[in-house]
Amino acid sequence: MRKVAIVGLAQVPVKENWTNGLRELAVTAVLDAMDDADIKNVDALYIGNMLGSNFSDQSNLGALISENAALDVNEAVTVEAACGSGSAAFRQAVLAVASGTVDTAIAVGVEKLTEYSEVSPANGLATAADADYEAAMGLSFVSINALLMRRYMHEYKCDKNNFAGFVINAHKNAVHNKNAMFQSAITEANYNKAKMIADPINLLDSSPISDGAAAVVITTADKASQYTNKPVLVTACEVGMDTIALSRRANPLRLKAVENSTARAFQVAGIKHQDIDVLEAHDAFSIMTTLALEAAGFAEFGKATQLAKEDIIGINGRLPLSTFGGLKARGHPVGATGLYQIVEATLQLRNEAPDAIQVPEPRRAMTQNIGGSASFVITNILERI
Amino acid sequence: MRKVAIVGLAQVPVKENWTNGLRELAVTAVLDAMDDADIKNVDALYIGNMLGSNFSDQSNLGALISENAALDVNEAVTVEAACGSGSAAFRQAVLAVASGTVDTAIAVGVEKLTEYSEVSPANGLATAADADYEAAMGLSFVSINALLMRRYMHEYKCDKNNFAGFVINAHKNAVHNKNAMFQSAITEANYNKAKMIADPINLLDSSPISDGAAAVVITTADKASQYTNKPVLVTACEVGMDTIALSRRANPLRLKAVENSTARAFQVAGIKHQDIDVLEAHDAFSIMTTLALEAAGFAEFGKATQLAKEDIIGINGRLPLSTFGGLKARGHPVGATGLYQIVEATLQLRNEAPDAIQVPEPRRAMTQNIGGSASFVITNILERI
Repeated sequence: MRKVAIVGLAQVPVKENWTNGLRELAVTAVLDAMDDADIKNVDALYIGNMLGSNFSDQSNLGALISENAALDVNEAVTVEAACGSGSAAFRQAVLAVASGTVDTAIAVGVEKLTEYSEVSPANGLATAADADYEAAMGLSFVSINALLMRRYMHEYKCDKNNFAGFVINAHKNAVHNKNAMFQSAITEANYNKAKMIADPINLLDSSPISDGAAAVVITTADKASQYTNKPVLVTACEVGMDTIALSRRANPLRLKAVENSTARAFQVAGIKHQDIDVLEAHDAFSIMTTLALEAAGFAEFGKATQLAKEDIIGINGRLPLSTFGGLKARGHPVGATGLYQIVEATLQLRNEAPDAIQVPEPRRAMTQNIGGSASFVITNILERI
Repeated sequence: MRKVAIVGLAQVPVKENWTNGLRELAVTAVLDAMDDADIKNVDALYIGNMLGSNFSDQSNLGALISENAALDVNEAVTVEAACGSGSAAFRQAVLAVASGTVDTAIAVGVEKLTEYSEVSPANGLATAADADYEAAMGLSFVSINALLMRRYMHEYKCDKNNFAGFVINAHKNAVHNKNAMFQSAITEANYNKAKMIADPINLLDSSPISDGAAAVVITTADKASQYTNKPVLVTACEVGMDTIALSRRANPLRLKAVENSTARAFQVAGIKHQDIDVLEAHDAFSIMTTLALEAAGFAEFGKATQLAKEDIIGINGRLPLSTFGGLKARGHPVGATGLYQIVEATLQLRNEAPDAIQVPEPRRAMTQNIGGSASFVITNILERI
């Protein structure tokens, strides 16, 4: 298999976007990423999207986006794995280039959640859970995470306040990210007073419903210098799987898919935890950040909230986390999220993050994108050449 | 790239299925295909599905199906390209095995169209068209095909009756296929008297709304003999693309995606039209059969209906077509259709079709799966070893 590098990237601001639909969001990201790589066409297009047919009455995004971006591609398909769709599309693009099937590809993630007709965002997002045995019983994604958080607090005798540090860190970083949905800092007092949504999850434990699109152009490492003087290698892009329903897991606090995906990624990249200089985690809920850090081996079980301190996860800490605001403050346009993470990690490795959130000379970044209740997880490791 | 072979297959009967949902349909096809290959687990699962989130409130089919089929897979994702989703999933599976990413994979197509809440099947299927510039103007897939058929009849001074032969052939074959939705022959008189749906398309020009699932197990050609004594090689699996909207094509009667996909498939397989012994075409509407046969080069433009005669497309003709009934009579569970075609072509090459529809000793089969108004097309060439 050939080595693969990211040579172009783009993102549109994450927000409730009342100007642009699915088509405009995706096409803007695709064309801007091509401009960034100074490339005129690519061989293939892979789209990460979860709810286009449901919310925008639009399937067949491959044809839609390649036509509207005036691409002449051999292949354009949508890849879906719930909130992990963005990284799932990225993985197919990496596989296509690595295998020699194509020489250049774009992975774009796009989601439009704030404009809908028949189905509410909460119900749309709940299609990532087991429709017959979870959603049909009234479980939404917030309430699934509330069950996990309550269990965690009980099991490890953990105070709700312990999670605040993750949220404060995300918002602090997002202040400097012009593409973030919430460019505002919060305090511990804000967190403690936030409105309860599904006890124990409050408004600030949750990522927002958002619209957005992000894209990367990839090619072989050999050809990367034709397009950029700052190529970033994809040294791992590995999947982990688990049951779709929480109730069918031996221990719901152990995210097996995160564990397997991370272990494989480290093995393929040939590195260890301490080699990661930036971590873009899937902080859709503060409990998910916590559980994922533990399953990934960055903290012992029951102890991840001890990392939620500025000297550890801040920009100058030993494990800078959610450096552009994460899902929590940048926003979480579900099928696009995996690509936002990859774009942000690549900006870090290129030393192109805004000054206040640029990690000092990072060499390796990890992004971790979670679908459903961690039923599908992809861990990417990216490396500055 | 490694050579890939089909070593197991299964299908569930196509019908309005009031007993089984998306989960049961897919899991049955997966487990039966594994039984057919006598294999205990596979490395990866690729799912072709178009409307799960819309009609069954279920996304994240990768986790759902792998869990419910008790698979221990490294990866399970959904691949979507409208009615071409089945072959799009098959292509990702072939790519994964060919590249050495995995050694064994299952491609399963599944669709559940007859049970729905908010959105009607016609509106669901219209998500394969351009939502803003076609569907929003009231165009359904039947009316899009009606425009094409009317244009064809005008352009080539072709009588509606000329299309009847394709439909009669499909129904004649389906009589012998226990998995077909319509196991009944029709006459030219039936065709001429059929109820008009969207002039000039009548009920018998159209494939039905159906539920179904079909699956194949694939591995490398080298390892195929571990699982079957009748492996079938995948010698080509090639995509063609076109605009999503009909109105943006120079000539809507020329299906560029079919042309490109077929030409690439012949090139990769190193064969010509006359080498094809069985053709499973995408006969969702009789006009689509006609246009695709011309774009694929099996007939001159304007002359494909001349093929619609038993001595040409019948089981003993020179180009046996829709040998198990095609989309028209076997049924068209959209995301599953591409896999039904592959299963049927493989049964032909194994000499395992029912006697009355077994083509005599076929060596090579072609399946062609069309997404949208031929905006996404995959042509597969399969070969008996």
